[in-house]
Amino acid sequence: MSKRPFPWEDRPKDAVDPIWRYSLNPVMKRNPTSKLSQVYNSSLVPYEDGYIGIFRAEPRDLITKIFLGRSKDGLTFDLDEEPIHFVYEDGRMDDSQYQYDPRLIKIGGTYYIVYCDDFANLASISIGYTKDFKTFIKLAHPFPPDSRNGVLFPQKINGEYLMLYRIADSAAAGDIYLARSKDLRYWGEYSLLMKRTPYGWGKKKIGGGCTPILTKEGWLLIYHGVMDTCNGLIYSIGGAILDKDDPSIVKYRSKAYLLRPERSYETTGHVGNVCFPCSALVDEETGRLAIYYGASDDCICLGFSTIDILLDYIKNN
Amino acid sequence: MSKRPFPWEDRPKDAVDPIWRYSLNPVMKRNPTSKLSQVYNSSLVPYEDGYIGIFRAEPRDLITKIFLGRSKDGLTFDLDEEPIHFVYEDGRMDDSQYQYDPRLIKIGGTYYIVYCDDFANLASISIGYTKDFKTFIKLAHPFPPDSRNGVLFPQKINGEYLMLYRIADSAAAGDIYLARSKDLRYWGEYSLLMKRTPYGWGKKKIGGGCTPILTKEGWLLIYHGVMDTCNGLIYSIGGAILDKDDPSIVKYRSKAYLLRPERSYETTGHVGNVCFPCSALVDEETGRLAIYYGASDDCICLGFSTIDILLDYIKNN
Amino acid sequence: MSKRPFPWEDRPKDAVDPIWRYSLNPVMKRNPTSKLSQVYNSSLVPYEDGYIGIFRAEPRDLITKIFLGRSKDGLTFDLDEEPIHFVYEDGRMDDSQYQYDPRLIKIGGTYYIVYCDDFANLASISIGYTKDFKTFIKLAHPFPPDSRNGVLFPQKINGEYLMLYRIADSAAAGDIYLARSKDLRYWGEYSLLMKRTPYGWGKKKIGGGCTPILTKEGWLLIYHGVMDTCNGLIYSIGGAILDKDDPSIVKYRSKAYLLRPERSYETTGHVGNVCFPCSALVDEETGRLAIYYGASDDCICLGFSTIDILLDYIKNN
Amino acid sequence: MSKRPFPWEDRPKDAVDPIWRYSLNPVMKRNPTSKLSQVYNSSLVPYEDGYIGIFRAEPRDLITKIFLGRSKDGLTFDLDEEPIHFVYEDGRMDDSQYQYDPRLIKIGGTYYIVYCDDFANLASISIGYTKDFKTFIKLAHPFPPDSRNGVLFPQKINGEYLMLYRIADSAAAGDIYLARSKDLRYWGEYSLLMKRTPYGWGKKKIGGGCTPILTKEGWLLIYHGVMDTCNGLIYSIGGAILDKDDPSIVKYRSKAYLLRPERSYETTGHVGNVCFPCSALVDEETGRLAIYYGASDDCICLGFSTIDILLDYIKNN
Amino acid sequence: MSKRPFPWEDRPKDAVDPIWRYSLNPVMKRNPTSKLSQVYNSSLVPYEDGYIGIFRAEPRDLITKIFLGRSKDGLTFDLDEEPIHFVYEDGRMDDSQYQYDPRLIKIGGTYYIVYCDDFANLASISIGYTKDFKTFIKLAHPFPPDSRNGVLFPQKINGEYLMLYRIADSAAAGDIYLARSKDLRYWGEYSLLMKRTPYGWGKKKIGGGCTPILTKEGWLLIYHGVMDTCNGLIYSIGGAILDKDDPSIVKYRSKAYLLRPERSYETTGHVGNVCFPCSALVDEETGRLAIYYGASDDCICLGFSTIDILLDYIKNN
Amino acid sequence: MSKRPFPWEDRPKDAVDPIWRYSLNPVMKRNPTSKLSQVYNSSLVPYEDGYIGIFRAEPRDLITKIFLGRSKDGLTFDLDEEPIHFVYEDGRMDDSQYQYDPRLIKIGGTYYIVYCDDFANLASISIGYTKDFKTFIKLAHPFPPDSRNGVLFPQKINGEYLMLYRIADSAAAGDIYLARSKDLRYWGEYSLLMKRTPYGWGKKKIGGGCTPILTKEGWLLIYHGVMDTCNGLIYSIGGAILDKDDPSIVKYRSKAYLLRPERSYETTGHVGNVCFPCSALVDEETGRLAIYYGASDDCICLGFSTIDILLDYIKNN
Repeated sequence: MSKRPFPWEDRPKDAVDPIWRYSLNPVMKRNPTSKLSQVYNSSLVPYEDGYIGIFRAEPRDLITKIFLGRSKDGLTFDLDEEPIHFVYEDGRMDDSQYQYDPRLIKIGGTYYIVYCDDFANLASISIGYTKDFKTFIKLAHPFPPDSRNGVLFPQKINGEYLMLYRIADSAAAGDIYLARSKDLRYWGEYSLLMKRTPYGWGKKKIGGGCTPILTKEGWLLIYHGVMDTCNGLIYSIGGAILDKDDPSIVKYRSKAYLLRPERSYETTGHVGNVCFPCSALVDEETGRLAIYYGASDDCICLGFSTIDILLDYIKNN
Repeated sequence: MSKRPFPWEDRPKDAVDPIWRYSLNPVMKRNPTSKLSQVYNSSLVPYEDGYIGIFRAEPRDLITKIFLGRSKDGLTFDLDEEPIHFVYEDGRMDDSQYQYDPRLIKIGGTYYIVYCDDFANLASISIGYTKDFKTFIKLAHPFPPDSRNGVLFPQKINGEYLMLYRIADSAAAGDIYLARSKDLRYWGEYSLLMKRTPYGWGKKKIGGGCTPILTKEGWLLIYHGVMDTCNGLIYSIGGAILDKDDPSIVKYRSKAYLLRPERSYETTGHVGNVCFPCSALVDEETGRLAIYYGASDDCICLGFSTIDILLDYIKNN
Repeated sequence: MSKRPFPWEDRPKDAVDPIWRYSLNPVMKRNPTSKLSQVYNSSLVPYEDGYIGIFRAEPRDLITKIFLGRSKDGLTFDLDEEPIHFVYEDGRMDDSQYQYDPRLIKIGGTYYIVYCDDFANLASISIGYTKDFKTFIKLAHPFPPDSRNGVLFPQKINGEYLMLYRIADSAAAGDIYLARSKDLRYWGEYSLLMKRTPYGWGKKKIGGGCTPILTKEGWLLIYHGVMDTCNGLIYSIGGAILDKDDPSIVKYRSKAYLLRPERSYETTGHVGNVCFPCSALVDEETGRLAIYYGASDDCICLGFSTIDILLDYIKNN
Repeated sequence: MSKRPFPWEDRPKDAVDPIWRYSLNPVMKRNPTSKLSQVYNSSLVPYEDGYIGIFRAEPRDLITKIFLGRSKDGLTFDLDEEPIHFVYEDGRMDDSQYQYDPRLIKIGGTYYIVYCDDFANLASISIGYTKDFKTFIKLAHPFPPDSRNGVLFPQKINGEYLMLYRIADSAAAGDIYLARSKDLRYWGEYSLLMKRTPYGWGKKKIGGGCTPILTKEGWLLIYHGVMDTCNGLIYSIGGAILDKDDPSIVKYRSKAYLLRPERSYETTGHVGNVCFPCSALVDEETGRLAIYYGASDDCICLGFSTIDILLDYIKNN
Repeated sequence: MSKRPFPWEDRPKDAVDPIWRYSLNPVMKRNPTSKLSQVYNSSLVPYEDGYIGIFRAEPRDLITKIFLGRSKDGLTFDLDEEPIHFVYEDGRMDDSQYQYDPRLIKIGGTYYIVYCDDFANLASISIGYTKDFKTFIKLAHPFPPDSRNGVLFPQKINGEYLMLYRIADSAAAGDIYLARSKDLRYWGEYSLLMKRTPYGWGKKKIGGGCTPILTKEGWLLIYHGVMDTCNGLIYSIGGAILDKDDPSIVKYRSKAYLLRPERSYETTGHVGNVCFPCSALVDEETGRLAIYYGASDDCICLGFSTIDILLDYIKNN
Repeated sequence: MSKRPFPWEDRPKDAVDPIWRYSLNPVMKRNPTSKLSQVYNSSLVPYEDGYIGIFRAEPRDLITKIFLGRSKDGLTFDLDEEPIHFVYEDGRMDDSQYQYDPRLIKIGGTYYIVYCDDFANLASISIGYTKDFKTFIKLAHPFPPDSRNGVLFPQKINGEYLMLYRIADSAAAGDIYLARSKDLRYWGEYSLLMKRTPYGWGKKKIGGGCTPILTKEGWLLIYHGVMDTCNGLIYSIGGAILDKDDPSIVKYRSKAYLLRPERSYETTGHVGNVCFPCSALVDEETGRLAIYYGASDDCICLGFSTIDILLDYIKNN
């Protein structure tokens, strides 16, 4: 990893939040190509001498798909022309009409893509995987429809995979659950992990964001929270720390948000007032974090922080 | 089973539906005891020289619970004074606040109770079991919340348990899915089994009813369908036949209902216009069926038919 | 018409409403045949030595259709086995999925059927006609979708056909409009005829009922009004008198209903609390009226009155 | 009071609820006169050698008004032909369009009528009074609009009048508050008295019923609770005991209902599944209670109990 | 037309959409006069040596009206001080309270204004006309209320006028219908022209925009589509080509939008995220198009394209 | 007051509205301190040689509180670190979870704070007071829950305090009522003051704003009005003049708004399209007004006008 450039800017002196914005945000703007209208909630992991990622993007029909993309520096991106096409393990072609909010996770030699697509016309968490970024396999609906915001832990814990899970659209939807599996195909032992707060930035709903990051304090969870106002929803970024060995235990959860929409590219656009985190790169040596978040469902933005700053802020707020 | 009396009445000549009503319906009326206000959607299986069942009943606070009950003849019932108390496999007490719509299924030497209770304030399919009807064990949430109308097949098929599954309360809820499991604890490979119909008695929602019955034509499914009118919902009973070896294949599905609310005990009461089937007894020799259905969320009713009549009706309507 | 029997019962002494019920109501009950579940909102006119009518009925799939039926006495009915099939004037088959609430009107030698069916999945007023009750022709959508409760005047007035018109399902729907046409195919000059009342039995919506009856006082309108309660809608029957030469002038409109749901066959059933008038037979010599109304979307009922009683009641209440 | 007949029937042996029904219910049926369609939620107090009461009744336009009525025996009633007309204290005529759910309370030599009418098109608690049942005075809106179910305590406590208060129609409406006043004209010091229950017969809303009855255990509160089902609301009767000196203290509150809709005149009608208590007569010597409740917004019913039975039931359930 | 200046800018090299924006947009900004707060969805046609138009504008009470305006160059506008006042053909004054979204069409020597106003408190398509821009006549409601987005074809086809028609506010509203008339006064033969798309920029509703333009390929339709997001609606511009002789035949329909809100004057304002086309000027010789669209219900914007570019784009996307 | 600086800028020549914006708006921006995310709807009065105010502000959990703040010049502010903590008069601690939209009024030697907080989970008008800005007392709920936008007149009129009152959240909420009290603790004699308008900037709701200002023409009311659009609500500022001696008489009410959201800090932000006035400073000698209004629930803005300009504008528009 030594040669791979890590995207970074030092914290500005006037920063008030524990995550600070890249000075050249957005890193990918509206109309990035003549075929794509917008690219936003996206997820990167280190790959070869740079990064590889899965990008939520909308062609000019505004039907959301996910695209493979590559980056040398984590700041500029080269996306495929065509969206990813999945096949089921038994060879059937995937016939979903849309795909969105991918999270890319490497476990062993396999790259998993946890995302949302349509299942009998309802949003549903799907799991795909690839080993070569050429063939993309999709599991046969391991989750029921009307589910969303799946985020997979990057390793088995006590012999089980763990997934953050949320109901998609029911009036009662809005809390984060934990699901468990031995094989990624059959899931059970659902439990409630974190509820919405009665007031404040996460009172309407909360949901998974970046792949959890293992730290000395436990699993660092960078997630999103939603507040409803008389003029719509506001998506902010929050943080929590889960127990290392039993992530169903929430050790700390910050009452304060880590970042919320403030800049014009965050408050206006396709869906204004949205900061939606989908992945974070970690510089193991320094603990630096490069957090990719979609802004206004219109563009990709980058925020910086460090593991220590976030752990400290979450514990004290 | 020779000595066990099977509840039965022959078909009246003026019957127009393939299921005909017991002439002394309801078999269990409002205020069956001084402690219970109503007993309705309930499920019986043969047991010893009579029957044993799990009954949905509401004490005088009208908070729904499930009770154990016994019957010599399938026509009169003796219910326990106290509702069933479950414990989790790890010994924790179940703290759900309500339970409803139980289905009782014997697989091997174990009696499984698939029912609905509250999980983080949302309706959720739960699985309990007992071997002695004294201790009742509950699995640790094998399904996510906001699920309902779970109906378990009475045997493994190709090494997997199968469960009819439905989303509970989302605006998009209303179709029947199939879920699969190797161990009843982890479920996956969800698939859409049957959709609501665009018009008619099942246009609002459909959901599982009796435990599927294996016949020469395949699995006989007695389920419920719901129609919405300007003055509320109407719950009717419908039928379908699933492939014996691959129950995800719907071989026949009757466009006509099998029974719908008509009598005053079905059209008025706690929740009027409800016929809700939860179990059917089968007389193996004759193919006779005694179908228990809750009426108006107020009482237990009994309908009769035979396997041949239902198979024939479903195939021709 | 001399030989044709007119259905009739004298007014009972204890009658409190200006329309009194037939003592043997309903004249057609649930499950009238083994193929039909219910017959209700229906419309009759004199024909040969008896009556002919178009009946709203639902087969056992509960998808509403309209059927031709005949009656010798106006009290018993003989319905066709198959629903009416329309063809467009250009020969195309009608592909609507449901039809309901027909009104049958004879103008010249032609019998017109004004009813509601689906047009691009929305309820829509349709106009059909027949001369022989064998071939049924349907005009090419003379009204836009989302319309309902069309009632055609039985003659041209000042060279124009007149139709009572109502928006079907919008939140703003609920008032009766008048539409005009020279040829039944193109309609215009829409005007508001009667609004809902702020309170009382017609506060939620009102809509056309029987074909208007020409009297010495003007057009006698027997229509329906709907009240909403916390437990659903109540459909009652009301009356108004329109100017003979300019029916857009409402001369009288009764604040009191003429009939409302009271009997068990009116308050409970498929859709409880519904009295819905669709046609009235007039005995020209005596002014006697036989008013057919659907009850609870389940059965056909008959009420009696006279033109004088209704005119008097409407003018004084 | 010795000569005044008290309506009464002994408890039947098969009674399961602490309130038992009068065997000749309803005491006042639909269409009690040719001018009134229904009389229901009504309130009586002893007067001269019989009883006097304020009755909610709907003329044949179904616009609810309140009427004065008298009874010799508490079982048969003689209602005025015209509804009550109020004048404001400054002489202005009351111009409200509807009035409903009256409670009649005698304090000192004055009879107060606490009821609901329209204030700027919104439901609002109003207070009227009379000394002679000829002139009816109305206070100038002592409460804001969107309030309902006002029930006045029959005496001042610690120098203050007390009123049960409820928000009328907001999504958040449904709990009972207590308001205080020194003069009935200005109200303040609002406090929450009882909340809805999370489940059961009072989970949707609760609201005041009869005027509180002072007993040795405190104030006996006979109130109503509402449960929502997929087919509408169910109104039941509940009970609680408030501290004698500080009625903001709830000493006991029964989890079980005291009575709920079961008979056909309670489950079907204008608004089915409604038992709504508005007043109770007390036989001081014996503690007997004659509880008047409206059934299905269609008729007046009578239930019996005794103070001891209710106190005992409320304390033990 | 030779001397009339045509508003134009060549396509910028970095343009990605087939319609490109005028570099000095908006051409008419907020608060254009001290009496008007905003001017937006407006429609121009050539007139004398310049252009004349009907402008949707809101005075400082924000009640929408339509105003007459003139322009020499299509880039600057001179609006009347007072809104247009219509009279009915029979001389009655128009008493509608608001008017909006006008389309101005010249047929023969008459200028027609198809727009929306209130009819019995509901939005309704109205048709007005003028020959001299001094007297404005309004037809007597040729369409029922709850209709909107009427767009008239600029000539009769097969002896009939054609109008794009849409239901206004029903939950089911959102598709474009075609209505036909021989005289503009009576309309019939409604048919479905184009449905919303299941996903993408037109999934919530679609509706008429500019007057259809006759090209060698057929009628070029520049219309609007609406997408719903969790933070409101997005109005984009789309294109289709209808058959020349039978415009009920959709030959091509672009899956990609032609323009969507991106600039700050389009994404924020009175109603953010709105690009709403109301008219297009055609330069017959060159095929150049100047498309006027309202942005954010706040200002008038101008986009350019050519007939060839649009035809080509619609056929290929 | 002579030495106290009055915030002021002369009217720009291009101003079109009767209130003009401070050229350096907002006077308090997002993230004013590292602890506060936003400060907006706030209220100032003269105090000592400067001003004192109560500020609505949200810490980084976005749970709204009110803070005490001071200003020398009315342009820059120094806020306390901790929010205001109230105690009830009987010494109990206030346990409300949020507080918002304060109005500060000096009557005699006491400073009253009329604001909104939560009462049994519902918004409720509360009244607090302080004499020293160190101890803050709160009255025991003088108003029922589900109330909002309380604005107290700055003096008794005819022996009574007057309060503008509004229902908070009911579907029927949106008009301004007047309530009266002799002691601020008990309120009554509610009356309707001003209704929403059928169309325009105040058609959805209206509510109190600044403390009424006594002028030669009567009470100058600077209030807010809300319009709903398909993309959310728009909050504008309006004006009215109430009779000096009987403020229930509305002498003038401007159909035109006084100011509405136009600048980017008003149209976008936490809740876009909001101008919400909470207080106005008056320069007695000159009649100058400095009007503080929250913009977009994100920042404090300042507008200027004079009493004469506003009176004149309200009377003429």
